[in-house]
Amino acid sequence: MINGEAMNENEIRKIVERVLSDYTGSSTPIPIESSARHVHLTTQAVEQLFGKGARLTKKRDLSQPGEFLSEQRLKLVTAKGEIANVAVLGPERKAVQVELSMTDCRALGIKAPVNLSGDLTGAGSVYLVSENAVYDAVNSVIVAQNHIHMTPSDAEKYGVKDAQSVRVAVNTKRPLTFDNVIIRVSEKFALAMHIDFDEANACCLEKDSTGTIIP
Amino acid sequence: MINGEAMNENEIRKIVERVLSDYTGSSTPIPIESSARHVHLTTQAVEQLFGKGARLTKKRDLSQPGEFLSEQRLKLVTAKGEIANVAVLGPERKAVQVELSMTDCRALGIKAPVNLSGDLTGAGSVYLVSENAVYDAVNSVIVAQNHIHMTPSDAEKYGVKDAQSVRVAVNTKRPLTFDNVIIRVSEKFALAMHIDFDEANACCLEKDSTGTIIP
Repeated sequence: MINGEAMNENEIRKIVERVLSDYTGSSTPIPIESSARHVHLTTQAVEQLFGKGARLTKKRDLSQPGEFLSEQRLKLVTAKGEIANVAVLGPERKAVQVELSMTDCRALGIKAPVNLSGDLTGAGSVYLVSENAVYDAVNSVIVAQNHIHMTPSDAEKYGVKDAQSVRVAVNTKRPLTFDNVIIRVSEKFALAMHIDFDEANACCLEKDSTGTIIP
Repeated sequence: MINGEAMNENEIRKIVERVLSDYTGSSTPIPIESSARHVHLTTQAVEQLFGKGARLTKKRDLSQPGEFLSEQRLKLVTAKGEIANVAVLGPERKAVQVELSMTDCRALGIKAPVNLSGDLTGAGSVYLVSENAVYDAVNSVIVAQNHIHMTPSDAEKYGVKDAQSVRVAVNTKRPLTFDNVIIRVSEKFALAMHIDFDEANACCLEKDSTGTIIP
């Protein structure tokens, strides 16, 4: 502002831009990965489905350190339908959790909530079928709430906190903005936003698509 | 502004809000409908699939005046897969057009562009199969670009023009903003935003969900 004079539009515009940038933190794009339908199992469920003493065996590592795609596959069955060849992720967890898209849930006739991974409040039910056994996975099915994994140092850079809800704009050929993306902070995480296949198809996600946290 | 004095934050804030409201027009929510996969046929294709002299017969009216769901159903077939019981919409059109979701396209192995209805540039191909015949629908498959149908009077109210791209926020339990929604204006239209099933599932669209045009 020039001393003693009223501000003109350009000066006001610059102030507004500075105010907005206070909300944005870093605008460095974040890689986006789409998660296919998958199952997490307990050690007890692994043994029931694949035999006593059985453990999940690694096929390949996933982007989050320690997580892996296993060699095991399962069929999901309900009264309405079935989906074969569903991935099982390792390592074993404390609860059985089945992560499906809304499209899958409609095909199987399952009512499932949109929950953060780990929250089975109101979760749906499905039968998990291996070549040898059936596991009744009651209260296990969720549609995964989209989220961003990051380290504490990433969180500082982006100016966000664990559990915070942010907006993320995806600049694909079908651009959209996810208006409630949850930040998840841990030293063990690698920076990545996770969305499901419905969300990926809705924005035509491609391999190198990224998202930007916006105010 | 008080005469001769510099503006304070509150005064600037009000100016910004007025500027933003210039972009928004009316904020009256717009009803959103999700379009299932469907087929539009030419009279020639109807005759080839359903017999000489055959016409599409109305099962029920759709929300856009003159458009209807027909009694006819078709199976979509590719080398990779098939989808049965697909709706055929009437009346007959000047070109065969098959509107699928990205999820459908992946299941059938079809590469289809995201195009506005009526634009078959780069469209994919599929076989349409009735009980009696097969129609080779070359260059017919698109993923429908989301859009808002409205009358000229609606357009004036919302401060938008035909073919304009707008942003629409959907306030569902999985809120998101579609960042490139095309306005389509005609006296014949009824006010409605159309999205496909991937987009509907990505935002958990419900029966009474609405969208708001935002700046």
